Amino acid sequence: MLQISQRGQAMPASPIRKLVPYAEAAKNKGIRVYHLNIGQPDIETPKLILDAVRHSDFRVLEYSHSAGNESYRNKLVSYYRSAGIDVTSSEIIVTTGGSEAIQFAFMTCLDAGDEVIIPEPFYANYNGFAVAAGVNVVPVTSHIENGFALPPVAEIEKKITPRTRAIVICNPNNPTGYLYSREEMDELKAIILKHDLYLFSDEAYREFCYEGHQISAMHLKGAEEHVVMMDTISKRYSACGGRIGALVTKNKAVLEAVMKFAQARLSPPSFAQIAGEAAIDLPADYFDTTKAEYKSRRDLIVKRLNAMEGVFCPNPGGAFYAMAQLPIDDADVFCQWLLENFSHKGQTVMLAPATGFYGTAGLGKKEVRLAYVLNLNDINSSMDCLEQALVEYKSK
Amino acid sequence: MLQISQRGQAMPASPIRKLVPYAEAAKNKGIRVYHLNIGQPDIETPKLILDAVRHSDFRVLEYSHSAGNESYRNKLVSYYRSAGIDVTSSEIIVTTGGSEAIQFAFMTCLDAGDEVIIPEPFYANYNGFAVAAGVNVVPVTSHIENGFALPPVAEIEKKITPRTRAIVICNPNNPTGYLYSREEMDELKAIILKHDLYLFSDEAYREFCYEGHQISAMHLKGAEEHVVMMDTISKRYSACGGRIGALVTKNKAVLEAVMKFAQARLSPPSFAQIAGEAAIDLPADYFDTTKAEYKSRRDLIVKRLNAMEGVFCPNPGGAFYAMAQLPIDDADVFCQWLLENFSHKGQTVMLAPATGFYGTAGLGKKEVRLAYVLNLNDINSSMDCLEQALVEYKSK
Repeated sequence: MLQISQRGQAMPASPIRKLVPYAEAAKNKGIRVYHLNIGQPDIETPKLILDAVRHSDFRVLEYSHSAGNESYRNKLVSYYRSAGIDVTSSEIIVTTGGSEAIQFAFMTCLDAGDEVIIPEPFYANYNGFAVAAGVNVVPVTSHIENGFALPPVAEIEKKITPRTRAIVICNPNNPTGYLYSREEMDELKAIILKHDLYLFSDEAYREFCYEGHQISAMHLKGAEEHVVMMDTISKRYSACGGRIGALVTKNKAVLEAVMKFAQARLSPPSFAQIAGEAAIDLPADYFDTTKAEYKSRRDLIVKRLNAMEGVFCPNPGGAFYAMAQLPIDDADVFCQWLLENFSHKGQTVMLAPATGFYGTAGLGKKEVRLAYVLNLNDINSSMDCLEQALVEYKSK
Repeated sequence: MLQISQRGQAMPASPIRKLVPYAEAAKNKGIRVYHLNIGQPDIETPKLILDAVRHSDFRVLEYSHSAGNESYRNKLVSYYRSAGIDVTSSEIIVTTGGSEAIQFAFMTCLDAGDEVIIPEPFYANYNGFAVAAGVNVVPVTSHIENGFALPPVAEIEKKITPRTRAIVICNPNNPTGYLYSREEMDELKAIILKHDLYLFSDEAYREFCYEGHQISAMHLKGAEEHVVMMDTISKRYSACGGRIGALVTKNKAVLEAVMKFAQARLSPPSFAQIAGEAAIDLPADYFDTTKAEYKSRRDLIVKRLNAMEGVFCPNPGGAFYAMAQLPIDDADVFCQWLLENFSHKGQTVMLAPATGFYGTAGLGKKEVRLAYVLNLNDINSSMDCLEQALVEYKSK
């Protein structure tokens, strides 16, 4: 009998998207659904970026260089310099979204049966890329009580085995919004040097830090060979659909091997490379404005959540996510209930149950992730819904 | 010590791109290089397609559905119907180029250690995707003497082992240009049904058939569950840089598993989906014009090649490639020599040595692939170069 591969069977469905049919059913009943479940910002993509594509005048939509257009990579050098990251264009490989940068890092540095340690909760799709690569994800738990700080070094080291090859971080973090401190980054550096591991650093949310600044993994002196940074324009410029990211590293052997994977898929998308290149010329205050908007949203959503009875939401230092503990037993059931059985003034809210972000079964059952990707009015309305929902749910 | 994964080491460099540094050096010496080495057409991308992107007026460059925009998939249904392929929108998953469709098929249907049979010479990147998936490519040799017809059924069946899961074809073929006959497609159908195998059918060049019509694998009645078609807009509309393709199958289990891989990478590129969707509205004679142009080029290049002493080039029935046997001992050495040591009136030609297209070591050493992606004048000039080069090379 024809079979689906074992990895095809093991591949996890997206925990963020699995409630979509319930949301669609709610909408079909005329209910307005506030989408706090997914990191798709409502922030407009800068017109300058879209116009660069609209005003393009080439005649043949050609393959680009497999590493991305040289002109774009040269511009990225200046972008990274402005972020305090000193790299050359040959240390940058443009990818099809951050997703492909993650895949390339896994494929290039890890074999089937190898292990990666990831602080949980973590970006759920790391699981998918790990399954595709035959790699085992070893979670080390961070906790809502201390805002999802990096687990103690001893906890991380306990997870290291002869098959451990890398630690994966996302900083600022999706889903927790946690921003790693200088001390935590130094702890990570010490671990990867001591145990000779790669550090895969997903820095998709670099610009969105509300309490202090991001310490990039690329800033870790003496660990240059160990660090592979995975990046994307998706969140930075509200350009998720472009599918342009980058893998950045100073490790030449990694670059050479990644290039072979990059050549096999020929090239990253041409249109969005134009957009990405134009983005480097955005006015210097672009991120100030965007960051100020996200900070207002964060301040509002955290305040609203913590004002609800039995809800705890640590203040996230970056990205545009908040994790909250709710007075419920099963976030998956609750989130489905919000869509299937609840409405408040004809509205409801879609949240991401946190269980999908944990590698350890049973964790996160009282937690949800909220992406504050909607404007302040919508956040207020969605929080009204959640507040009312918790009252009704409790009395069930 | 930090290591590159075994698959990262085993990953083949692109045999088509490995001569690029020699071409660049030739250009730096002021020599004009005719690129017949790569399937990047000089045909202009239809203005209607590019304009659709240029006139787009959305404000947020959002993720699309992981399977691609519904509007695009609906349009693709009508496109496929016009090609005699009867599918619904739910049987189409839009991919990031044909490359991703191949990756999805391999990942979903094959496990590490599984085997795929591929008539050789074959599209070299199948090797790369196989290495990434841990899959073993088992070549079955087709021969230039009979124009690279499908090897006899007995030869194919000899290669089948308990680990064989699929046969991969490209039709019309890259690199040979061979167009499989009705009888050959029926033979393939009999084999996949008898041995319960998948048939992965790469139909990137569907429209470009000069001797008869393409029989799509999707036309094979009774084999619907076995067929996974891999498609792309790259060649069809001279839109290689868009990175939009599709995986098409009637096998629901495959579709469900592919969707999990598709969700992990979030979505295919948004800009080029607009281009792909607009392309379905191209006037009915678009392919007639393009095909006529490619046919003239084929006729010219085949005639020119066969007029050279010691050269044999079978007449390819489709795609835009020709394979030629040259009076040389080592095509890799010769192709490099063309760039490094030869010029004719300040010009030379870049060809793809055929060795990279064979899975069996030692085959193809006298053969080269020529992509007739240049206009008639350039093809004539490049053939002048090759003719002169063969004379000079012989007398060395």
